[in-house]
Amino acid sequence: MTDLFSKFDALIQQRETLLSTGQRDPFSLVMEEVKSPTVAVVNGKETILLGTYNYMGMTFDPDVIAAGKKALDDFGTGTTGSRVLNGTYQGHRECEDALKEFYGFDHAMVFSTGYQANLGIISTIAGKDDYVLLDIDSHASIYDGCAMGNAQIVPFRHNDIEALEKRLKRLPEEAGKLVILEGVYSMLGDVAPLKEMVRISKEAGAMVLVDEAHSMGFIGEHGRGVAEEQGVMDDVDFIIGTFSKSVGTVGGFCVSNHPKFEVMRLVCRPYVFTASLPPSVVATAATSIRKLMHGSEKRAHLWENSRKLHAGLKALGFTIGTDEPQSAIIAVIMPDLEGGAKMWESLLNEGLYVNLARPPATPANMTLLRCSLCAEHTSEQVDEILGMFERAGKATGII
Amino acid sequence: MTDLFSKFDALIQQRETLLSTGQRDPFSLVMEEVKSPTVAVVNGKETILLGTYNYMGMTFDPDVIAAGKKALDDFGTGTTGSRVLNGTYQGHRECEDALKEFYGFDHAMVFSTGYQANLGIISTIAGKDDYVLLDIDSHASIYDGCAMGNAQIVPFRHNDIEALEKRLKRLPEEAGKLVILEGVYSMLGDVAPLKEMVRISKEAGAMVLVDEAHSMGFIGEHGRGVAEEQGVMDDVDFIIGTFSKSVGTVGGFCVSNHPKFEVMRLVCRPYVFTASLPPSVVATAATSIRKLMHGSEKRAHLWENSRKLHAGLKALGFTIGTDEPQSAIIAVIMPDLEGGAKMWESLLNEGLYVNLARPPATPANMTLLRCSLCAEHTSEQVDEILGMFERAGKATGII
Repeated sequence: MTDLFSKFDALIQQRETLLSTGQRDPFSLVMEEVKSPTVAVVNGKETILLGTYNYMGMTFDPDVIAAGKKALDDFGTGTTGSRVLNGTYQGHRECEDALKEFYGFDHAMVFSTGYQANLGIISTIAGKDDYVLLDIDSHASIYDGCAMGNAQIVPFRHNDIEALEKRLKRLPEEAGKLVILEGVYSMLGDVAPLKEMVRISKEAGAMVLVDEAHSMGFIGEHGRGVAEEQGVMDDVDFIIGTFSKSVGTVGGFCVSNHPKFEVMRLVCRPYVFTASLPPSVVATAATSIRKLMHGSEKRAHLWENSRKLHAGLKALGFTIGTDEPQSAIIAVIMPDLEGGAKMWESLLNEGLYVNLARPPATPANMTLLRCSLCAEHTSEQVDEILGMFERAGKATGII
Repeated sequence: MTDLFSKFDALIQQRETLLSTGQRDPFSLVMEEVKSPTVAVVNGKETILLGTYNYMGMTFDPDVIAAGKKALDDFGTGTTGSRVLNGTYQGHRECEDALKEFYGFDHAMVFSTGYQANLGIISTIAGKDDYVLLDIDSHASIYDGCAMGNAQIVPFRHNDIEALEKRLKRLPEEAGKLVILEGVYSMLGDVAPLKEMVRISKEAGAMVLVDEAHSMGFIGEHGRGVAEEQGVMDDVDFIIGTFSKSVGTVGGFCVSNHPKFEVMRLVCRPYVFTASLPPSVVATAATSIRKLMHGSEKRAHLWENSRKLHAGLKALGFTIGTDEPQSAIIAVIMPDLEGGAKMWESLLNEGLYVNLARPPATPANMTLLRCSLCAEHTSEQVDEILGMFERAGKATGII
């Protein structure tokens, strides 16, 4: 027998070598207890969470939890069916209504994961003779949607307006074109120049899809994301988002004003051929989305946290991925993978969890300690976090 | 602008024509209330559910619901992170432990949907120079896993042992080969000849993946599926399954005894780049799986229901997809799409929900009314169902 796993031998070896040095494995942590959106117990130790996507801290909101429990009682634990057969309950419709209201769009379609939303929408709307233009730093689910579909893929340099314009101009005028952008790019937490990019895309006859996964809930006056902040909501054809970040559960969605959008429910394979979300999940999502509409105070506090952490880390001598805080993600650039892994472990020993991001997942093959702030972090917690960074940075020689 | 939706115009037109006749839309039903695994309210009318995948009726099990509510209180509504970062909670490990125990396998990996389990495992383990052999009636998620991956795809005729053998013999001896089979095929509810197919696959040096989505919980002595029933558990390399059928919630999994299996957690993109399941979902899944281990009475009753419905429909003069009941799915073959749609609507008016399956999703372009039985259907409900089929069949002239 030819072992299909032999292709992973080099990786397995590399990993064993790393762990044999005594380095803690950054990719197999278990949250033994979770006490709040910002505190968990890891390896028996109380730990501040600074590496979740729980931006708005909705996961322990009493109304949201109550909605989930009620749906368990009323509708049971699952639908055991696809949205197009027996898997559309009242709650799925209510969740889509909440999304339509949140964004002010005509159509909303809920997917079982955010990954499947990108996979499904991209692979379905862009067909064989169409072109998909995407930023090279796009999320894996966007690349996977391209891999599953049949369109021609045209990548362009990250956040580079001219590069996008050049590529658009090279394409046949009559061809279908889809430009895919993200509001916030998750590795460095930087924001896309949507205003310019949407304008040149529309001028070139392209449709525009914006993934607002890392901006929903706290960017823009109503938390609709970067498209709202930059005033281009009306020119965006599709907004993709997720329930597993600011909304605080799991699932994905696409909203659109396209008059033919509802046909997606019949032709989008990752929507049709998958079980719908459990009633408790759509109930928590709908409740959370409606609360996010009135979350301006939380939004303001999240921004305070972001600015405070960014300024504090900079003052300590760390190198940050963006000159100014552009989102709730503050990426601290490490000198190399070895130093980054040590710093990550040192912070964990201090009682702080951040995300270690390493090549090849990172731009320019950087090693990053990615910090994601939450609206539920108190100002005192941010002070504490800065103290931990200072001690760990000095202990590892990074500052 | 070239409208990317113009490719769907013919379908939109076709659908509008169908619905303009007054035919109720089989693909946009809403379950307004769900009273039990077998009864819902649809369009204000109490309706028996005979078209769910709720085979073991676990969705309203009080222990399962209680586990979901406790997890909401203890761990919140979501993890807001990937399994490899902050998204592995105690409950995800417990759910994987339950799966290992259920199957008696060394490794278990939980995905956020069953669709992503097939997508991820297939596209990751079968690489550029490998071959994937699959039954032409395979589920969409299997085909989509092939489309996303880079292996050579070799389809073979449904459940045809010789066809599989011939294709295996044509492939280079040294090449990596993955044979993908399903325990039960969902359209007709027929079972694969796993014993012979697994043997010839192993003889040809192939690895074998069996999708037991529609057999887990009630086929085999311990409900492990067709591989257990046919005595080939030890020769199967990967079992894929879902939480959205017998288990009663949402999610997917792969179990394996392969010593290198854990590397999947690092390289399988639909596992890495997606948020993990909410704590309440894995808690309900783990509780349900443990109860299914002791579900032999429920299993026996489900089989009684299946035999009774199969015999009853046959006696009424309907044409069934399989000569004998082979699973919990009884597929009633309709003369054509028009007749099938009328019969489906007539049953719904009687107060019975079944699945209408139509070309191109069906084998040999048949139109099917797919009935899926539940262990919670009472014998009286099955009688009632047969009465409804008789009346609707006569009214539509199908019997």
